[in-house]
This record gives sequence, structure tokens and C-alpha cells, in this order.
Amino acid sequence: MAHRTITVLPGDGVGPEVTEQALEVLLTVADLYRHDFTVHRRLAGLAAIAEEGVAISDETFDLCAGSDAILFGAIGSLPAEQRKNATVRPEQALFRLRKDFQFFANLRPIRPSRSLYHASPLKPEYLDGTDLIFVRELSAGLYYGHLDAAIPGKPSEIRRTERGEEAVDTLLYTEQEIERVVRAAFDIAAARRGKITSVDKANVLSSSILWRRIVDRIAPDYPGVEYEHILVDAAAMFLLRDPARFDVVVTENLFGDILTDEAAMLTGSIGMIPSASLGVRRTEAGVFGLYEPIHGSAPDIEGQDRANPIGAVLSAAMLLRHSLGLPEEAAAVEAAVEEVLADGFRTVDISEDGAKLVGTRELGKRIATAVRRP
Amino acid sequence: MAHRTITVLPGDGVGPEVTEQALEVLLTVADLYRHDFTVHRRLAGLAAIAEEGVAISDETFDLCAGSDAILFGAIGSLPAEQRKNATVRPEQALFRLRKDFQFFANLRPIRPSRSLYHASPLKPEYLDGTDLIFVRELSAGLYYGHLDAAIPGKPSEIRRTERGEEAVDTLLYTEQEIERVVRAAFDIAAARRGKITSVDKANVLSSSILWRRIVDRIAPDYPGVEYEHILVDAAAMFLLRDPARFDVVVTENLFGDILTDEAAMLTGSIGMIPSASLGVRRTEAGVFGLYEPIHGSAPDIEGQDRANPIGAVLSAAMLLRHSLGLPEEAAAVEAAVEEVLADGFRTVDISEDGAKLVGTRELGKRIATAVRRP
Ligand SMILES: CC(C)[C@H](C(=O)O)[C@@H](O)C(=O)O
Ligand SMILES: CC(C)[C@H](C(=O)O)[C@@H](O)C(=O)O
Repeated sequence: MAHRTITVLPGDGVGPEVTEQALEVLLTVADLYRHDFTVHRRLAGLAAIAEEGVAISDETFDLCAGSDAILFGAIGSLPAEQRKNATVRPEQALFRLRKDFQFFANLRPIRPSRSLYHASPLKPEYLDGTDLIFVRELSAGLYYGHLDAAIPGKPSEIRRTERGEEAVDTLLYTEQEIERVVRAAFDIAAARRGKITSVDKANVLSSSILWRRIVDRIAPDYPGVEYEHILVDAAAMFLLRDPARFDVVVTENLFGDILTDEAAMLTGSIGMIPSASLGVRRTEAGVFGLYEPIHGSAPDIEGQDRANPIGAVLSAAMLLRHSLGLPEEAAAVEAAVEEVLADGFRTVDISEDGAKLVGTRELGKRIATAVRRP
Repeated sequence: MAHRTITVLPGDGVGPEVTEQALEVLLTVADLYRHDFTVHRRLAGLAAIAEEGVAISDETFDLCAGSDAILFGAIGSLPAEQRKNATVRPEQALFRLRKDFQFFANLRPIRPSRSLYHASPLKPEYLDGTDLIFVRELSAGLYYGHLDAAIPGKPSEIRRTERGEEAVDTLLYTEQEIERVVRAAFDIAAARRGKITSVDKANVLSSSILWRRIVDRIAPDYPGVEYEHILVDAAAMFLLRDPARFDVVVTENLFGDILTDEAAMLTGSIGMIPSASLGVRRTEAGVFGLYEPIHGSAPDIEGQDRANPIGAVLSAAMLLRHSLGLPEEAAAVEAAVEEVLADGFRTVDISEDGAKLVGTRELGKRIATAVRRP
């Protein structure tokens, strides 16, 4: 029996709907395995701005800091009119959590389920054998240029010059930032099929040249892992032409953002993909992390019980595995998802003729009910 | 009868092989339509480094400046061992041409041909109706941070600090740089189906916030054109889930690099895609530009007569249209390509059971022979 604390930040849009189902699954696991999970639920994003004036309050942040893991929903966007001069923006919640907790390794597994081949834009023969995981660097790069005081000038801003306005963003990576995420990726590859693809733009970017150099330096420490470098534009092609060639893909923050959304389409829906953002602090039986589906807040379907909860539920499984040290429980949740899909239950984004079309809540319930202790 | 001057830079790898076929087609057009094309052929990239010590010599550059258009092949890469401390790198040829001639609008059309649906990873129903064109900004952004002296510090470099090495690249856009490419894209949309999608990462980057603001400012000048903003990660998804929704896609340099390679897969092979890089100088009947297939130098198949020449040949068609002011001739070349594909001739990258498999040269000859003056 394990005592664990989870802070839940449902966020905006469909975030609360899918998070509710993921939480239901976690509580079912707690019952079945007689664990004791303490859950705190707090606001983040637009919801927090509306109630508390900030994207994430210090109090909520501290609560996260004291937890074993964070279960996150989705973050909304400000309407266009309000975005222009806003100093408080919902995305800041994510950026603060990622940066301040040093969630540097963002894991995004892509494994198309055979029962959903119909929902993918790709032909089945291109999907066969695809089972890859992205390790996206999440704590540095263009996302944080504006936070790093070490850069001369103000590194992310729009400024006036005599010739009009201009805008600048800064892409900075230190050796340590690259090294820790690359090592994490090699560790994961060593426990999988032993192959790493490092993705960069070394024919253009200094940061990619340094990235490549560090990968070359670390690789000999993992003699059992085969590795290669490919350019980001080629990676965008290979993910479609031959996705089965990849095992572990490691890349910097913004490249990872783009490529993982592209790769998500292989599974039929972005609603299927979970993620784990792992940091540096050890918990009792794992590592402190943030878990979220990779889909957005989808305001167009908010409150309609249509969102796919599977990405959120599989994120909860990753939470069990990586932060709570409960791999058997994680596998039980993953098996429940497969079972419900094999039984033909679908949300609208992954539906087909003859499928059993259900809503967010019903799919969530069915998954929770299918979780079994072996 | 038109007198025109074209500088041909075949470059490296398969560049010379495909360029030869494109040139053959151009000379056939000259014969048929009784034009007078003066052609200069010069080195660029690895080939120029080997012979002349630089990626592109001043003399070659000046010859380009005096031409109506540049026909370009492909640029190679230095082997990994030599790349680390190299100050002369083959890509510099492209960067210099793009920057110094202000080739700011890079057009990349994506229109899957029905006779090549078999070669695409996408299911036919996702390809139907797809006919889009990218307008990629090509003269600024992360590619050129290191050239702009206006930025404090050295904006693209690897430097030593007390904590080890770090690398920085700078993403800079001025108002004018954004405005000119966005206007070019709106002009193109007005002459097509009247729809523009502007792609950015405005929830993260200052440069994208400025980009979005400028698109919003220009849009009212084009009341007949409908426009939307989408985030780059969402764009990477939509290109697979619903490519037919796009007409003109305008985006900054690096996003355009990644998304166009992804989108190229829809046509079955990157070897199919031409490009035009348009600048600011007017020629007698058009605008000065550089034309190249978007594929790379493919050293693994160099000299094997296996490369697909269609991207290069269609680039020559764009050259006829945009720089030489010869739209009828351009259409005749495009029709010849369609005819040869409809007759079942294929290079290996687009081949299928029962196809007539031919080499680079034979496919090129067949296209040239199929060009007809109506
Ligand atoms: C919401 C947004 C800032 C975020 C990102 O770009 O990282 C999202 O797209 C993601 O991938 O988690
Ligand atoms: C060769 C390389 C520098 C180039 C680029 O990144 O622009 C190529 O990928 C392209 O798309 O033309």
C-alpha cells in the first residue's frame, strides 16, 4: 500500500472533462490495489486568470511542489483581441511549471493501435510496426529565451526602431541542458529496442551543432544503443514515409512540439496521445513529473461530452509508472484502454461505421470498469 | 521571341543529374517557341569549395546578378568530421544567394497527382482535392541571426562560459520582412481560391505575435481573400488530417522548411516538388528568382541515374512563368510532365507494380519530347 499525493490542474476547455475521467481511473486503481492517493484540485490557465488574476498562483505552485505528481488537463488561449498587450497569459502556467520544476524530458509515445487504423490518414502498411517515443526537451530553447537574463539585450520582445517594429526571440541551449535530456533518451532507448534518432538542424543552427556534438560525446557511454542524426525537415518526411524505422527520437523543444503533433496523426487522433514531463527531483518511488494529454483545450467542443479521454487516461498510466513507481498498475490501465477499444467503443474523433459511439464520460467509465488486478 | 539569360548552378550529389534534364527541357522550349536563352553553368556548394575554395565565388555571384533567373540543383553537406570547425560550408552558397538577392518569397506548390496516389503514405480519400501552395519566408529568421549586426552580442555562436559551452541562435523579423512576404502571399491567394492560412507560434514567440499583427493589418486590403491564423503544431496535423482545407499557406523560414518537407510526402516523393524563390528586382518580363527542386543532394544515389528529375523540371516551368514571363511555355512543360506520368513512366521513388521504370535521363528525355506548342 502506497501513500501518494497528486495535484490535479484540469485547466481550460475540455481539460476538466478529460481530467475527470483520468482521475476516476486513478481512484479505481487506488481501490483495487489498496493505495492511498491524496488529490488536490486547483485552477490553472484561463480559469485561474479569471478567479485568481494569474495563470497559476504561488499557492497552487507550492502545492504542486509538495506532490508526487501533477495531472494536467489543457491550457486555453486568450481571444485574439485580448492577446495583443496582455501581460498575463494562460500559457504562462505551463511555462512556469516546466521551467521552475525543470521538467526537461517530455515523453510522448506514438503507437498506433490496430483497432484504430481506420481513423489514421496513413495507409495501414505504413503504420505496421510503428512504436516510437519522443523525448522532447521541454525546459529551454526558444520557449524561454525571454527568461534568461544571461543574454545581452532583452531576448524576446517586440521593439520599435527607426525602420518600424521588429521582433526577436532567442534560442539558447547550454551544454547541461542538452546533456541531461540526451542521457535520459539514451537510458530509455537502452530499455527499449536500442535505437536513438537525434533530430536537429545542424546545417543552419549553432545550437544544433552543439546538440550534435554532445550526442556524439554521450553515445559511447551506451555501446548497446545504435544512434543517428537526422535533420528536422527530413524527420518530418520519415515520420510519414517510414515511421517504423524510429525507436526513440530526441529533439529540442520547438522541433519536438511540431513533430509530435504530426506523429500523433498516425494514431488517428491527437486525443490518443499521453505525455510525461519528467524533472529532476526524486519522489519516494520515482521521479516528480507532470502528466497531460498532448491535445489542446478544444474550446469548440467544450462541455459537449465529445472529447476523447484516452490521452488523459494514458497520461495517468504514465504518472503511475514514472512518479508513483507503480508499473503493474500502469500496465493494468493501458490494458483496460486496449480492451475498450477492441470492444468497439469510440469517441467521435476515432469513430467508424458500425462502432459504438460514446461520449467522454461513458468511455472513461468503461475504461475504469475494465481495469483489473491480475 | 525573347532573349533571356539563365545561370545554372547544378551543385552537388544528384543536383547535376536532375538539372541537366531541366535544362534539356528549357532548351526544347527555346527551340519550339523560338526563344533565345543564354545559359551560364557554374559551380556552387561542395563542388565550388573543392575547385574555388568558397561555396560560391564572387564571379559566379555577379553572373547570377546579371541573369534573369538562376536554376539551382542541390547543395551537399560536409562529412561530419569536417563540419565541426569548418568556416567554409556548402550551405553558405544558398544562404548568400537567398539573403543578398533578397529572395524573400519561396513558393512550394503541393498538388498530389492522381497517377501517383499509390506512392503516397496517405489514403486516397485524404489526398482528393489537395492543391495548396506554401509561401515560405526565405530571407530572415533563425537562418540569418548570425548575419545581422543590429543584434547585440554575436547572435549565432557557440561560446564557453564557466558552466561549460552554450549555443545561441537569434530569430529576428522586422516589420518590412514580414510585410513583404505576407503581401506576396495575399496576392497569390487573390489569384487562386482566395484563402490564406498564416502559420505561427504566437502562444510562445514574440516574432509570431508581430507576424500575426501584421497579417491582421494587411488582410483588409484584400477583401476577397479569407484568412485564418493557425499554430505551427496544429498545421503539422492539419496537413495530414485535412490537406484540402488549405489554399495558400504563409509562414516564417524554419516553419516553412519543416512543413513543406512534411507536405511533400502527400505527393508520394520529395523528388516531385519544385520551388521558386522570388526576389525584389524586376526582370524584363517578370521578377528575378532562383528555382530549385526541394529535395537534397542525395549522395547515396549520386551518379546512379535514379534521381527523380520532375522537381527540377517543374522548377524550370516556374522559372519560365515567374522570371521569364512565359506562362504558356510553363504550362506546356507542366502538361508534358502529366502526360509522361499518365503514360506510366516512373523513377524508382514513385514506381509501382506494372509501371515503366526508367532512369533520370530517360524520364527527362520523355518529358522534353512531350513538350508541345499548342
Ligand atoms: C500550449 C502550448 C504552449 C504547448 C507547447 O507549445 O509546448 C503545447 O502545444 C504542447 O505541445 O504542450
Ligand atoms: C539545404 C538547407 C539549408 C535548406 C534549408 O533548410 O532551407 C533546404 O532544406 C531547403 O529547404 O531548401
